[in-house]
Amino acid sequence: MIFRICVLLLFALSMRAQIFTLTREQMLKYTAANPYGRFADGRPQVPDSMLEKVKGLSIEEVWSVLHEQPGYKDQYAGEGWRIMHPDKKLVGRAVTLQFMPARADLQQPSDPNTGKSGPHISPHQLFIDDLQNGDVPVVDLYGKIEGGTIVGDNLATAIFNATKTGLVVDGAIRDAEGIFPIGMPIYFRGVHPSPIDYSTAMVTGVNIPVKIGDATVMPGDIVFGDRGGLYFIPPQFVKEIVDRAETTHIHDEWTKMKLDTGKYKSSDIYPSPHDPALKKEYELYLKEHLGK
Amino acid sequence: MIFRICVLLLFALSMRAQIFTLTREQMLKYTAANPYGRFADGRPQVPDSMLEKVKGLSIEEVWSVLHEQPGYKDQYAGEGWRIMHPDKKLVGRAVTLQFMPARADLQQPSDPNTGKSGPHISPHQLFIDDLQNGDVPVVDLYGKIEGGTIVGDNLATAIFNATKTGLVVDGAIRDAEGIFPIGMPIYFRGVHPSPIDYSTAMVTGVNIPVKIGDATVMPGDIVFGDRGGLYFIPPQFVKEIVDRAETTHIHDEWTKMKLDTGKYKSSDIYPSPHDPALKKEYELYLKEHLGK
Amino acid sequence: MIFRICVLLLFALSMRAQIFTLTREQMLKYTAANPYGRFADGRPQVPDSMLEKVKGLSIEEVWSVLHEQPGYKDQYAGEGWRIMHPDKKLVGRAVTLQFMPARADLQQPSDPNTGKSGPHISPHQLFIDDLQNGDVPVVDLYGKIEGGTIVGDNLATAIFNATKTGLVVDGAIRDAEGIFPIGMPIYFRGVHPSPIDYSTAMVTGVNIPVKIGDATVMPGDIVFGDRGGLYFIPPQFVKEIVDRAETTHIHDEWTKMKLDTGKYKSSDIYPSPHDPALKKEYELYLKEHLGK
Amino acid sequence: MIFRICVLLLFALSMRAQIFTLTREQMLKYTAANPYGRFADGRPQVPDSMLEKVKGLSIEEVWSVLHEQPGYKDQYAGEGWRIMHPDKKLVGRAVTLQFMPARADLQQPSDPNTGKSGPHISPHQLFIDDLQNGDVPVVDLYGKIEGGTIVGDNLATAIFNATKTGLVVDGAIRDAEGIFPIGMPIYFRGVHPSPIDYSTAMVTGVNIPVKIGDATVMPGDIVFGDRGGLYFIPPQFVKEIVDRAETTHIHDEWTKMKLDTGKYKSSDIYPSPHDPALKKEYELYLKEHLGK
Amino acid sequence: MIFRICVLLLFALSMRAQIFTLTREQMLKYTAANPYGRFADGRPQVPDSMLEKVKGLSIEEVWSVLHEQPGYKDQYAGEGWRIMHPDKKLVGRAVTLQFMPARADLQQPSDPNTGKSGPHISPHQLFIDDLQNGDVPVVDLYGKIEGGTIVGDNLATAIFNATKTGLVVDGAIRDAEGIFPIGMPIYFRGVHPSPIDYSTAMVTGVNIPVKIGDATVMPGDIVFGDRGGLYFIPPQFVKEIVDRAETTHIHDEWTKMKLDTGKYKSSDIYPSPHDPALKKEYELYLKEHLGK
Amino acid sequence: MIFRICVLLLFALSMRAQIFTLTREQMLKYTAANPYGRFADGRPQVPDSMLEKVKGLSIEEVWSVLHEQPGYKDQYAGEGWRIMHPDKKLVGRAVTLQFMPARADLQQPSDPNTGKSGPHISPHQLFIDDLQNGDVPVVDLYGKIEGGTIVGDNLATAIFNATKTGLVVDGAIRDAEGIFPIGMPIYFRGVHPSPIDYSTAMVTGVNIPVKIGDATVMPGDIVFGDRGGLYFIPPQFVKEIVDRAETTHIHDEWTKMKLDTGKYKSSDIYPSPHDPALKKEYELYLKEHLGK
Repeated sequence: MIFRICVLLLFALSMRAQIFTLTREQMLKYTAANPYGRFADGRPQVPDSMLEKVKGLSIEEVWSVLHEQPGYKDQYAGEGWRIMHPDKKLVGRAVTLQFMPARADLQQPSDPNTGKSGPHISPHQLFIDDLQNGDVPVVDLYGKIEGGTIVGDNLATAIFNATKTGLVVDGAIRDAEGIFPIGMPIYFRGVHPSPIDYSTAMVTGVNIPVKIGDATVMPGDIVFGDRGGLYFIPPQFVKEIVDRAETTHIHDEWTKMKLDTGKYKSSDIYPSPHDPALKKEYELYLKEHLGK
Repeated sequence: MIFRICVLLLFALSMRAQIFTLTREQMLKYTAANPYGRFADGRPQVPDSMLEKVKGLSIEEVWSVLHEQPGYKDQYAGEGWRIMHPDKKLVGRAVTLQFMPARADLQQPSDPNTGKSGPHISPHQLFIDDLQNGDVPVVDLYGKIEGGTIVGDNLATAIFNATKTGLVVDGAIRDAEGIFPIGMPIYFRGVHPSPIDYSTAMVTGVNIPVKIGDATVMPGDIVFGDRGGLYFIPPQFVKEIVDRAETTHIHDEWTKMKLDTGKYKSSDIYPSPHDPALKKEYELYLKEHLGK
Repeated sequence: MIFRICVLLLFALSMRAQIFTLTREQMLKYTAANPYGRFADGRPQVPDSMLEKVKGLSIEEVWSVLHEQPGYKDQYAGEGWRIMHPDKKLVGRAVTLQFMPARADLQQPSDPNTGKSGPHISPHQLFIDDLQNGDVPVVDLYGKIEGGTIVGDNLATAIFNATKTGLVVDGAIRDAEGIFPIGMPIYFRGVHPSPIDYSTAMVTGVNIPVKIGDATVMPGDIVFGDRGGLYFIPPQFVKEIVDRAETTHIHDEWTKMKLDTGKYKSSDIYPSPHDPALKKEYELYLKEHLGK
Repeated sequence: MIFRICVLLLFALSMRAQIFTLTREQMLKYTAANPYGRFADGRPQVPDSMLEKVKGLSIEEVWSVLHEQPGYKDQYAGEGWRIMHPDKKLVGRAVTLQFMPARADLQQPSDPNTGKSGPHISPHQLFIDDLQNGDVPVVDLYGKIEGGTIVGDNLATAIFNATKTGLVVDGAIRDAEGIFPIGMPIYFRGVHPSPIDYSTAMVTGVNIPVKIGDATVMPGDIVFGDRGGLYFIPPQFVKEIVDRAETTHIHDEWTKMKLDTGKYKSSDIYPSPHDPALKKEYELYLKEHLGK
Repeated sequence: MIFRICVLLLFALSMRAQIFTLTREQMLKYTAANPYGRFADGRPQVPDSMLEKVKGLSIEEVWSVLHEQPGYKDQYAGEGWRIMHPDKKLVGRAVTLQFMPARADLQQPSDPNTGKSGPHISPHQLFIDDLQNGDVPVVDLYGKIEGGTIVGDNLATAIFNATKTGLVVDGAIRDAEGIFPIGMPIYFRGVHPSPIDYSTAMVTGVNIPVKIGDATVMPGDIVFGDRGGLYFIPPQFVKEIVDRAETTHIHDEWTKMKLDTGKYKSSDIYPSPHDPALKKEYELYLKEHLGK
Repeated sequence: MIFRICVLLLFALSMRAQIFTLTREQMLKYTAANPYGRFADGRPQVPDSMLEKVKGLSIEEVWSVLHEQPGYKDQYAGEGWRIMHPDKKLVGRAVTLQFMPARADLQQPSDPNTGKSGPHISPHQLFIDDLQNGDVPVVDLYGKIEGGTIVGDNLATAIFNATKTGLVVDGAIRDAEGIFPIGMPIYFRGVHPSPIDYSTAMVTGVNIPVKIGDATVMPGDIVFGDRGGLYFIPPQFVKEIVDRAETTHIHDEWTKMKLDTGKYKSSDIYPSPHDPALKKEYELYLKEHLGK
């Protein structure tokens, strides 16, 4: 408890200088549809139990609900990622960081270190220091490769220790050889030996909407990544996706079981059986397995 | 036998509505050089025993014969594939499916379901229902990714159960996570969570020549795929390729064996030995191993 | 009259060997919605008077009708064209020609010259010989540049003399310097000094649906090209587009006239006036100018 | 005066709902180096007389000062523009507009129309209504082409009437044919017949820093565009650029005059003469022409 | 005469330090097929009278001879050029300059200024100082844009004054606005406001073979550029190209004259007439016009 | 010893015909900073013991020294490689080979076979025959894929047997399936079934500076490749890199050990501890481990 409050204070201190941050009031306004609790700064907190269920989903199950929602056409970012450890699903709550090309008149007054005594701490490291269990850092570095390397092996270790999840960066990572053994899933655009370069890039926003591929990501969105790409799920849709997916799982299990018998054409079975007896058999199977 | 005729009738029924299909007469005309038997619809049937031999080839051995044939410059499609399971060779007889961007005036009269009672079966699923052992579906989806996903895990299972081979699609697949465990080699351009979208794409041809990369593929061509790309071998060249490859296998075996002794410069041995004694040694080795 | 019949016979002779051609019966089936007359081969013949009206349109006016039609999402091909004489609108009736990469087993039996005595005439030149006034050749050369040059200055002259329109080729042209002075609008992908190369490309279809960019083009479609790209308008939509455009013309004329006074904010006037007096003024203006 | 206040009030009304807007206080903080006056909302107002001088510059003269400033490496955006009327220089004060992919939970509460009676006015049109003489709209539409068309001929007319300058859009324009005759310089990425589509894009910021190419643009920056690309000049550097350019103009005039005599090698004259007599001649020429 | 010798001496002085230069002996060896005279340094000197004739050619006429020469497949560089003044043909004798990414251990000992007193003259400016009437500088800057700008308006003026031709640079130019009025044809890859940057690029060769696009260019090759791209013609082929082109000119003149009568199909006339009377007419026409 | 001299003589014989080769004198001039011994032809010979230490480096450690050296900005080539066996580090001494597009007038006099009796040995195979233990062939094939395949399985075996290292080719390899089992790391651009084609490419230089990506590579540079790309290290910097890396290793070890305790924020520890006690602890740890 004490720790939580400390974090909050630090947040207020370290980040108030950013050009863009959503106030708690704004966070509530722009995530008004969130049906769950919230963190101290207003960010939606989809419960851990729900995150566990999301880990069992496929990206198509996310699509099947989200593509029907008017006003949410582009929550998917599928093109051009390089993926480290594509065999591990990436699931967690988005925290967002936005960079833009550096210019001194904006950078100097917005750097949290300006006017502070004590050691200089890079803005992205302050951001990493605030990460919590279940968070997924989502970093908009506008595809920058040289000097756009958000972490090397040391900070990647720090992220993984804090979050137990992974990382999304529309930019680069450094020291791919050193990061590989950590075993965390990372979605990135490139690799470069240079460290992040604050003379060409500056932090402009923390926990604001950011554009990743063709998706707008909000803090508190559920990040879902696998071989098929990345989805950013607004909290208000998580439950429906999880609920519908159970039926899809059972349907696909039954469909492939039937096809594996070699006795049917695909259209006898898929997308749904036409024969009344098969139909009945499937419905029975579904009833028996739902909720198990 | 009975089964074969059924398939043929079904074919006639289900596909007669397509805009483009080669009649049996046309199939014979355009594959007149085929030295083997044929399926009921006229498609060349390179024998299974020959397919087994093709599985032992390398793509360079295919090249060495095909690049010499006047009029067959572009049977290779090597650029821009993503390959699932590149460690498994893809070998089989091509069946082809062509899509174009949808327009209602063409799509409605050419859909096999138009004017038919009973359940609606998507044209590409009718195509999958007709697949036989040893077939390789080769699908021209003109590089379409979103809404250009020819299969997900259910239909991929259906294809693999029917063919025991794999899939080539100049377009996308869906549910890469669910398809991966099936273990079939797939050559594709991208992945997307959406299903195939008949409001933007329509089937225009079945078992016609299709363009894949820079190659024109005919039904009955032998599909050959490995890490090095895809070849589409007209039936009339299969035997010569297989025959010549045996010599190449023995040659490479001997060459590498000699180089591994560390006693020779590469030009002493490769492409062929200059020294009369070595020359003789190689010829003896070749004679002993040919046909074994 | 005599001329028309000759053309038809020639057509039957010269082209029957093509792999794909729509028979008159198929042409009627796939253009059943055409409200106008037809050429002898069944191709829709949107009247010249209507073509004249189409020349007064903008590409946005075409879009405003076509984007509403279910099943016609992609009649626009806007990306990646190089345009010769972009200041001249291209309007006419599509005739289509399809190429694929050459392979001898298809090319030899489908070449109209095979088995014929007399001089060899290249298939694309036979196609050009059949062009009529108001036609626009639409050629699918699958983006081929070297050896994919459908015309140089001589054949471009032949096309322009016959059609008085222009040319669309998803491929290349030759002799850009010599073609430029002819003054016809051409939409093409590149330029190369080589002539078309029948050892790497072959004609596979004449007057069939072809894919150009993301559009499927049918013979008889109205080609509409300007600086904004290309539209292929199915005949059944031409009249509605022309009718609606008249209102848009008057609306834009009035809107810009008002804005030019400098007395209004854009939202006072555009997209439509809110003020009742202005509304009335506009309606009066519209009534006075419609049909003039 | 009265007018100025009205504008300010309107601004407050129309735009307060945007997710991101710099308050007057923030505007002062982030443009603290501005040596000139300001608009009511705090945006720097480089004087008209200075804008006139900027029109006489070349892009190299801008570069020669800006590339030396630590912290301003990337004020140039030169790649990938299509330019309408490249022969006319684009010079004016930036006002900025930022879009992101639409999502309903952000879009609804941030739309200025939400909860307002009266006619719905699109956010980008409200932005256009506020433009003043000498402004250059700089729009971040993240390269979107279809549905990313910020203006057609009507709104382009409105912009030109208000600003007498031009337009920069990292996105598309509509109705290129209708916009061309207005004669204003426009830097854009593509053309599409569709209007802007608020179901896939939403306004997220007005008069905030935006990223255009590799540059971060601030409201009040001087936009400078010619055949060589675009520069966004922070107000604090305008005077130095103008001052130094005069010398460069005279230097280049003298250099080319000398080279045109045909009596010198380039290195006798350029970058500066080595010969003492020539050196003296140049210095005299410079002194005589400076300030004229 | 005196001037010529001076140039030669200067050449020897200024350039001996380059990493790669062909000695006169090497120049003779690698241009042994040159049928014309030579410059003092051994570079082939195709006569001015021949250059005049080359100006009347089209790029297709160059192609028609060169594509037949075994061992000269790739003398054409057609892709990806931006052309300034494409309406003016570029014809002249190639002089070549090669850059590579800078590294100090190579750059310092190969800079002609090293160890010399007097003013520092940039290596590319020494190269420009040596240009003669009829030369075309061909510069391999490996596609470099930022810092790869071989000339601005001052040095472009120097080049044009010396050569009366133009410029080819696989790299960039600076100050496009200032260069445009000079009116010389330039083939380049991009534009950037920065000057050439010797901390990232260094001169590695003068008058050696350089790679431009897919062509290898030798000093003394005839550069031929128009809207259709660039050809680099080895001297030994110039005469044959010029001779054959005359026939092509007359042929095309006659062909278009005939087609313009509107009485013939294209295949009656092109590529050559079949009808004996027409054939005769053409042959007569050719005889009458040859050599005129 | 005898063997070494033979190699030298052979070198002199086989390669003297190349257009570009550095003489021993030139090699010394351009690698004057080399602090180690040399091969007979002047190529720097960084000792084996040093190569062993280089194998323990990461690419970031190379960067940290090289990016500080004035005049060596671009020794890194990171973009666009396909890597075979990325899990194995590639370390060795560069030997370089340069190709350009073929033209007969250069190729014939520069081919080492010209005027020689005996069997024809391809120039690239002569190059391979000269390879020694610890060499890494670095081949500039200007990105050529078809006909740009420097090795298949036979010559790859020859390279690996001679060098025990790997291969860098800015071009293609052939027979990827056959090369894979050899297990050597290869950096390449593509795969094609064709062999190298001397009618479109010719060898122009041996052991000269070559451009690979944005780097200039000299014979004797240390090639360093891993998942993060390729570095070409001039010999004069190897020792400093190795020395500094030891400290980095210990630093990273200590940093990650501390972060793994879960008791610290990243900024308490990284990049260096602020707390005096931690600082002291780290310094002690460093002292204890340096040189171990």
